[in-house]
Parts: sequence; structure tokens; C-alpha cells
Amino acid sequence: MPEVTSGIVTLLTDFGVEQPFVGVMKGVIYGRFPAARIVDLAHGIQPQNVAEGSFWLERSYEWFPSGTVHLAVVDPGVGGERAALVAESGGHAFVGPDNGLFGFLPADAEYRRVDARKLGIPEPSNTFHGRDVFAPVAAELASAKLGFDAVGPKHTPAAAPALGRAKANGDRVQGEVVAIDRFGNLITNIEQSLLKGWRSPRVKIGKMERALERTYSDGAAGEYVAVINAFGTVEIARRNGHAAESLELGRGAPVTVEGK
Amino acid sequence: MPEVTSGIVTLLTDFGVEQPFVGVMKGVIYGRFPAARIVDLAHGIQPQNVAEGSFWLERSYEWFPSGTVHLAVVDPGVGGERAALVAESGGHAFVGPDNGLFGFLPADAEYRRVDARKLGIPEPSNTFHGRDVFAPVAAELASAKLGFDAVGPKHTPAAAPALGRAKANGDRVQGEVVAIDRFGNLITNIEQSLLKGWRSPRVKIGKMERALERTYSDGAAGEYVAVINAFGTVEIARRNGHAAESLELGRGAPVTVEGK
Amino acid sequence: MPEVTSGIVTLLTDFGVEQPFVGVMKGVIYGRFPAARIVDLAHGIQPQNVAEGSFWLERSYEWFPSGTVHLAVVDPGVGGERAALVAESGGHAFVGPDNGLFGFLPADAEYRRVDARKLGIPEPSNTFHGRDVFAPVAAELASAKLGFDAVGPKHTPAAAPALGRAKANGDRVQGEVVAIDRFGNLITNIEQSLLKGWRSPRVKIGKMERALERTYSDGAAGEYVAVINAFGTVEIARRNGHAAESLELGRGAPVTVEGK
Repeated sequence: MPEVTSGIVTLLTDFGVEQPFVGVMKGVIYGRFPAARIVDLAHGIQPQNVAEGSFWLERSYEWFPSGTVHLAVVDPGVGGERAALVAESGGHAFVGPDNGLFGFLPADAEYRRVDARKLGIPEPSNTFHGRDVFAPVAAELASAKLGFDAVGPKHTPAAAPALGRAKANGDRVQGEVVAIDRFGNLITNIEQSLLKGWRSPRVKIGKMERALERTYSDGAAGEYVAVINAFGTVEIARRNGHAAESLELGRGAPVTVEGK
Repeated sequence: MPEVTSGIVTLLTDFGVEQPFVGVMKGVIYGRFPAARIVDLAHGIQPQNVAEGSFWLERSYEWFPSGTVHLAVVDPGVGGERAALVAESGGHAFVGPDNGLFGFLPADAEYRRVDARKLGIPEPSNTFHGRDVFAPVAAELASAKLGFDAVGPKHTPAAAPALGRAKANGDRVQGEVVAIDRFGNLITNIEQSLLKGWRSPRVKIGKMERALERTYSDGAAGEYVAVINAFGTVEIARRNGHAAESLELGRGAPVTVEGK
Repeated sequence: MPEVTSGIVTLLTDFGVEQPFVGVMKGVIYGRFPAARIVDLAHGIQPQNVAEGSFWLERSYEWFPSGTVHLAVVDPGVGGERAALVAESGGHAFVGPDNGLFGFLPADAEYRRVDARKLGIPEPSNTFHGRDVFAPVAAELASAKLGFDAVGPKHTPAAAPALGRAKANGDRVQGEVVAIDRFGNLITNIEQSLLKGWRSPRVKIGKMERALERTYSDGAAGEYVAVINAFGTVEIARRNGHAAESLELGRGAPVTVEGK
């Protein structure tokens, strides 16, 4: 974490915004750091889908200034034995549960285990550490009242399954649908970098097979089109349509890209 | 209201965020109080469900610093005869319609009826007092340009039905489901305090009967689990599942807790 | 654009808030303009429905202080040939695609075509100009680091179909449903001004015909009621009900008002 924080705290959760779960987290943050600038990154992560939360956080955090604190809560194990941690990498700090949510961080990322008692954080509830643990820690870090080293002891993150990574095998990459956006586009975990040097990659998903195009408008009305999206992964859209509905596919659907 | 406001205005409505109803309220607030910090508490209250709005506001407002203004609009009577009011309690101010939304406030709360004409607020529309009355008043209060006593004459809130309170009767408490969160958890209005001293409370809802547990992860995968949630009320979850769907229950479903 | 900006950037998109599309736009804005105050106007515009986006923006922007920058992205042509533009009118600035989204602006509005390269904006992705073009430009304008004249060359907006305007014909106005709010109210594009001087306008939609009333509570429970809403257009509600569902009508449904 750089000496100068950006004062920004981003929030990514699977809480939705129907009820005030996110709202009270903001109350806690402002109570400890009145000058905070709080940004809702996303609250529509599929409930308890750590892989989806991790996917989006990986592709979002670098769009924020150095010195930003990213608070992320997709936390099926709340109230159990999993640790609360703070990670630091490339000038960004990350606060959340130790369950693989930050598994995308590079090997030189550093971790501290949150020692809530030492930090003077009141005894948390058993079901809402977003409000009771992570929000206070994020506020203290973002305000620079708490330094990274003072969070708690050094920590090695729990071994987590490689979450939602596509597998490359020669001229074939096998991945899956990670999320579906509001346009019905199927967003996959197949990174552009895995297709490097391929002259004419072809994308197969369900009953569809298409060459990879440059942008949505390269398809005619009603046609499917596969592109590299703005987050650097393969995405399948339907021009003037809803690809997920017409292909009858959802999260987890297998996707293959073959090249030559 | 303390002399020093926090500069925070929270917003709780049943407007949703699909259309710009909440957005234009923020425009009005910033126009009158450029330094405001505005927090969306919740906009997914069931349309016109005053009891649900009241339930969440009661359990949220104390997570904000003293001197915060809470603007709440669940307002089936807009354009009719109901008053607009400002309430003050424990260093927090509340702005909204006089329809029971603030019925949870303690007996020593003070109330003023909004005298919009005297405050120089333009003639409001008949259908959107959130923008035309409550937002201006909240902004003026939060900026400390308007003091509580200057809002208008002292006011006695209209008699409102006791909204959504559980009923205790010896070793039995009868309540109901107030809200369903994104995880499918059934959130009830049965306060922890009603179960005080009970050694082994049992929770009954629909076809389910369970002992009260400590946290979600005390249940095995697929099992129902009843806990005291982070807002201090009884909640029924299903581990790795969606309790509301599998129990086929919704808002208003009766819940019983029996103790001994 | 006045010399003094309000520092406010409003965002209106069809992106939803489930994924971090809007969140990363905020990261880009804060990166270039740390003191920005960012307001979500609406992110629930029907995907690619430029007319709906335009309708709401027209009725929202004047609720913000002069000097505000309104960033709007409903952009079916992203990655294709459509221009990126900045408009200026009445002290407000507008940033977005040249596709009719700002077609409501008066004849004396001024337009500049965004010259991204000249502005030092990195080569954009093919699918997300909200983040890569519009957010940087909006931030630079709102921070007053970029003046309107420096955005790029003068620009004449592409001819766009008159989006969603009602047609008046003697004592009859023909319009349509533009949006449905969370209460099930049918919001139409029939402006109050088209009914000027009419003594007893009658509203016809689907199987319903009613006189125009003053406010929602002029209807009895379960009755339909037609009113002029707070945005100045005809709206059809059902008292304690969901008009869209019970009339089985949606966006685009024809509405007639007849007067005398």
C-alpha cells in the first residue's frame, strides 16, 4: 500500500441492493473515515459464487487509482473458521474473507490476517462480517489510520481451488461461462492471451460455432457474434438479441475455442 | 439534532433504481447542499410496504454517525392529506411522510410538521414528494441551514397501526416474515430480546421446525438453519440453498418460536 | 458550459448494476478527477432502447445544478462508425454516442465531436466506450481541465428519428408507453402541454378508459387512475395494484388522450 491512499473504497458483494446490507456498511465506513469516497463495484454477484466475484474483481481493480482499498464479500463461510485477511499488491489493498476471492493476485502479493480484537473492533455478529469486520478495517486502511503491517500477523492464504480458470491444450482452449450481462451476453473466462498468435480462432458454445470477430456490430441483426470483450475475455453476444436465452445457456456452460 | 451534522443524507425508498427517481432526488440535494454525502440505504422496499420500510430503517440508522439525516419515502398516500414530517431522536433526523414509517422511534422523539410554503419550497407535484418536499428539507437540515425547530410547528404523528411487531405470549412468540434477501433467507420480525433466557428455543415456519443455531454454517449442506441475524431478529436460511423457494413461503408467512 | 462546473457527473446507462461496468467507469472518473461527485441517474434503461434513455435524461437533467456533466450510454452502435460527442445546452454538458440520445436538446445546443487521440485518451476497446472514451471526457470536462471548445471539431449530430414523441391531432393525442416503474405504473410520452386548455381529457389504453385525475389517491382501491406525473407526462396507475400486469400492457403500448 503506498503511503498516500486514494481515499477510495470499492465494494463488491453478493448482497444485492434491495435491502440495506450495503448501506449500513457505508455507514460504518463513513463513521470511521468521513472523507471516504465509496464506489459500488458490483453487488449482483451470484449468491456465494466466489469464482464470479473473483473474476470481476480481477478485471476491475486496476481501473482505480493506486492507493485504493477494495472490500469484497462473497462469504459462504461467514461465522465459521475461515480467516479475515488484507492483501496488498501493486499499490492496491484488498479486504475480505480468505476463501479464494483474491486468488488472482500475483505471487508477490502480501497478506495479513485481521486481528480484530487487537484493532479494537467490537465482537462481530456471526452472519455479517461485511459490516462488522471488513468495513471497519477497510475504513481504517483507506484513511491511513491503520498501516498494512499493523493489520495483524503475516498470513498465507488458505489453499483454494484454481477458481474458474480456462485450460489451454495445444490449439484448443476449454473454458466456461462466468457471467451473463444485462444484454444476455455470455461472458467467459477464456483470456485473450491464451489465443495469442492464432490466425482464425473459432468459438463453440452449445449449438453455436463462429469465428472470432472484432466487435458486436460485425454481426448482422439476429446473428450470434463472438468477440474479445473490454475485459479481455471471449464473449458471445447476439446482435439485437439475447444470446443466453436463445442459446438456452447459463453460468457454467462449457465454451471451446479452437485455433490454428 | 446536534449542532454539528454529519453531512450524510441516507435514502430509503420503494422506488427501485431502474428509473431516475432516486437520481433526481440526489440532484435536488446537491443543488441545495453541494458538500452532502448521500448514501443509498435501500431502494428495494416492496412497493408501498410501509412496514418493511420501517423495519429496515429501524435496524439501519444507528450504524450511521450522529447528526445524519435519514430521508425515507414509502408513501402510498402521496398527494393526499397525510402530513410531511421531520423527527429527531438520539442525534438523528428523519424526513418523510407521516404514515407510520418512523413508528419505531422512542417515546421521547420530537416531531415537526413540514411547512413547505414557509420554507420557500416551490409548490410540489402531486405524485413525487420525495423530490419536491423531502429532498429539499433533508438537504437544508443536513447542511445546517435549517434547524429542527424552524421546520414547522410541533406535530403529533398520526396514529399508525403497530407495524409488524411480533407478539410474545408466555413461552411462545408469534411473528412473521418481513423480507426475503438475495440468498433466499427469510427475515422475520421476531426480536432476539423476546427470547431472552430461553434455553432451547425452537423455530417453526411452514413445514420446518428447527432449534435456533449460532450461525449459518452450523447447518449441513441442504439443511435449514434458524439463527439470530446481524440485525437481531430470527432468520431462516437453507445452507447452500434458497429457503424461501424450497419452503414455498414469502412475506407475511407466520413464524413461531417456542421456548422453555 | 459555465466557467464554474458543479463537479457533478451523472451516469445513465442500460448496463444495470449487477456487474462492475458502471463501477469501473467511476474508477476512471475518480482517477482523472478525484473531487468528482458522481450520481447514478439510472442504469435500468431497457437494453439498447435509446428512446427510453433519451426520455429519462430529458426529464432529469434540469434537476441538477448548472455546470453538471451528464454522461449517458445507450449505445447499440459501439465499435462501429457512430461518433462520440459532447453537447452543451443551458449550462449543462452531455457526453455520449451520437445516436439520438440527446435529440431532446433545443435547437441552440452546441455540439463537438470527441477527438480521442488529440485528448490523449488511450486507444479504446471495441465494446466499452463508456469506460474508455465517455468517462475520461466527462471527468476532464467536470474538472474543468478540458473546455468545451477543446473537445474536438464542431459537429452536427447525425439525423436521428424523432424518438418517442407523441403526436397531436386536433382534440386527440396519440402516444405510447415509454417505461413501467416499480409500482407497475405505465409512463407515457404524452406531454401535459399537448393537453393545454382541454376541460375534460379522457385517457384510453388497452381496455381502460378514464378521465384524467389529479393524483393517485383520487382513485378508489383497485381502480385505475390516469394522472399527469411528476415529470409532466400522462401516467396510468392502479390504486393498490399493478396497472401493467392487470392491463397486460408493456413498453410501446399505444395510448390516446381525447379532449374537448
